Amino acid sequence: MVASGIYAYLPLGRLVLERVCGVIRKHMNKTGAQELSMSVLSPLAMWEASGRDKTLEPIMLKVKDRKGRDLCLGPTHEEEVTQIAAAFLSSYKQLPFTLYQIQTKFRDEPRPRFGLVRGCEFLMKDAYSFDVDEAGLKIAYEAMRAAYEDIFKECGLNIVMTAADSGPMGGSVSHEFMVEAPIGEDALWFCQTCSKYYREQGDCPTCKKALVEKKMTELGHIFQLGTKYSAALSAMFVDKDGTRKPAVMGCYGIGVSRILAAIVEQSYDDKGIIWPKRVSPYDLSLVVLDDSLLAQALELSDELAGVGLTVLVDDRIAGAGVKFNDAYLIGNPFIAIMGKNYIACGKLDLEIRKTREKRSLSRQELVNFLREEFNG
Amino acid sequence: MVASGIYAYLPLGRLVLERVCGVIRKHMNKTGAQELSMSVLSPLAMWEASGRDKTLEPIMLKVKDRKGRDLCLGPTHEEEVTQIAAAFLSSYKQLPFTLYQIQTKFRDEPRPRFGLVRGCEFLMKDAYSFDVDEAGLKIAYEAMRAAYEDIFKECGLNIVMTAADSGPMGGSVSHEFMVEAPIGEDALWFCQTCSKYYREQGDCPTCKKALVEKKMTELGHIFQLGTKYSAALSAMFVDKDGTRKPAVMGCYGIGVSRILAAIVEQSYDDKGIIWPKRVSPYDLSLVVLDDSLLAQALELSDELAGVGLTVLVDDRIAGAGVKFNDAYLIGNPFIAIMGKNYIACGKLDLEIRKTREKRSLSRQELVNFLREEFNG
Repeated sequence: MVASGIYAYLPLGRLVLERVCGVIRKHMNKTGAQELSMSVLSPLAMWEASGRDKTLEPIMLKVKDRKGRDLCLGPTHEEEVTQIAAAFLSSYKQLPFTLYQIQTKFRDEPRPRFGLVRGCEFLMKDAYSFDVDEAGLKIAYEAMRAAYEDIFKECGLNIVMTAADSGPMGGSVSHEFMVEAPIGEDALWFCQTCSKYYREQGDCPTCKKALVEKKMTELGHIFQLGTKYSAALSAMFVDKDGTRKPAVMGCYGIGVSRILAAIVEQSYDDKGIIWPKRVSPYDLSLVVLDDSLLAQALELSDELAGVGLTVLVDDRIAGAGVKFNDAYLIGNPFIAIMGKNYIACGKLDLEIRKTREKRSLSRQELVNFLREEFNG
Repeated sequence: MVASGIYAYLPLGRLVLERVCGVIRKHMNKTGAQELSMSVLSPLAMWEASGRDKTLEPIMLKVKDRKGRDLCLGPTHEEEVTQIAAAFLSSYKQLPFTLYQIQTKFRDEPRPRFGLVRGCEFLMKDAYSFDVDEAGLKIAYEAMRAAYEDIFKECGLNIVMTAADSGPMGGSVSHEFMVEAPIGEDALWFCQTCSKYYREQGDCPTCKKALVEKKMTELGHIFQLGTKYSAALSAMFVDKDGTRKPAVMGCYGIGVSRILAAIVEQSYDDKGIIWPKRVSPYDLSLVVLDDSLLAQALELSDELAGVGLTVLVDDRIAGAGVKFNDAYLIGNPFIAIMGKNYIACGKLDLEIRKTREKRSLSRQELVNFLREEFNG
């Protein structure tokens, strides 16, 4: 913590962030969305066109530069992306397209809290689709919904999707992606018999039993915006019939830094964090307990790098207990110990972090096991 | 341009930025430096410890949040990284280490100009080394200097390194990395006989001929800081002899967005940009001139992806002239045309963007040629 609501990511945390971003990029690119990078600073005048200089005023961080320009730190980017689209959009032949970015965003939170969950400065993925009509928007929206399910699944998260209010974003249809979290600030109502979530308190509409409250955190929110921003900022195209129309837009957000907090909330034990396989800082912690084995440990690490796996080699001069505790705490999904069993009979002691299951494997068996685990 | 001094990167520009960042990361990681990610916002109070709340005041963008906190948008990160080091540094056994980040930085430029060269919001790589003594610092400094040469070479840039003033950064020794650029704002003096650059106007110290002025842009700057920040922000360690000492620091910056501008300045012709091989948006532009070839074009693109090469397939319904012009303009280093020669005799027409050299190759010959070009 640099200050309340403001955080730095140390090297291991940053690696997790990078891997989560990698998962998001993979699934965004699969839908055909193209990544761009918009600006953090934007002139306040741009926000006047949509009227959000007023509706977003309570959360905007503003700055005046020495030339007297009124700027703000972008809390979201509908206006800027629409302005970009307006600059090059002319014909229906250019549609549909979807643009996205992964970027630090800023909101003046009245009560920054729960670490990465509600901060003033946070990482977000925001995507924006542009279509000729509502039917096209529905296709883009459905592709994003499906991509979101894949993203959260690959991050090891159990997500609940619910219809939601569009609020100050505008538009009609919107859905939220939420996870259960003890520190959650939203609530859903859960039927323990039917295993279903509801927005309203009361009895289960199906089995009539009483619903119980679950605290939830929102990780993603998708919106069918319609033409609110394209009409206000002139992102127009000439349609087949020769008429000029505003593009029909959708927007799709994911709280990237929140995903980290949500994973830790859902996946830990008394020893520390248990990172899911695809988003751990490293794939394997390799604990070396004898200096004479260091060269062989680095050779194994190189072999695993050759098949795309990452290894954190603990070669510190420290006791075995210290090294084991740190390996558990860091939470890489697999821990291999290179010690007296390796000297005596060439065996590494492998531990699966999640189940605490242990195996004794030769070097080749370990490589095969990990390849199977990560590519299988 | 979003506003004067503020830019967004559209998809192709962002790809170049990502590849330049990839080159920087590769060479930083090779030195053993570890990547982290510091905050954009920081409390102004943190800057009071080093006195830079005053010396950097003219370029700081400041913001007050609704809780009345005085924050600034980080123009540089010596204070924050030193505070982070102070939090976990205790013994000489933890030294040396180097931390770096690639991050958007903010400066209130009185005259933002020349696009990406002098902006208010720009991408920077900043690294910070921590050592037990001056001898250690010199080793870290030399490793960074060597890494910088590799980075700029891989970006296709001809760099001039010169000893420089440390200015408001503090410390004693510092070096700048500059490139010639018509829009440069710094000057060096060049001897056309000896091919050497000098900081001072006059005659060449070697051959006595008159030096000519060259306008230059600074892309990198490295500093031996000493203990200015570690002493002010208490980044102390207990040395072998039991005494408490401040860590000896160096800092190392690269203007990442400036690299893009510098490459374009050094590498273009009348048709458009010519990106160097390692930092182009894609490795190959594949221009498809007949719809019946699209499936085969995508197959070729997949085969090249399998060996780590990226392909921009132009499958638009547009004339050959439009497609050729766009391929030149975009500036990928190789352009392959799949048209009537492919239908008639299975040959692609390859053009090397830089030399305009043309070859007629079978699909397999093209794959082999590109593998050789990129991995050879």
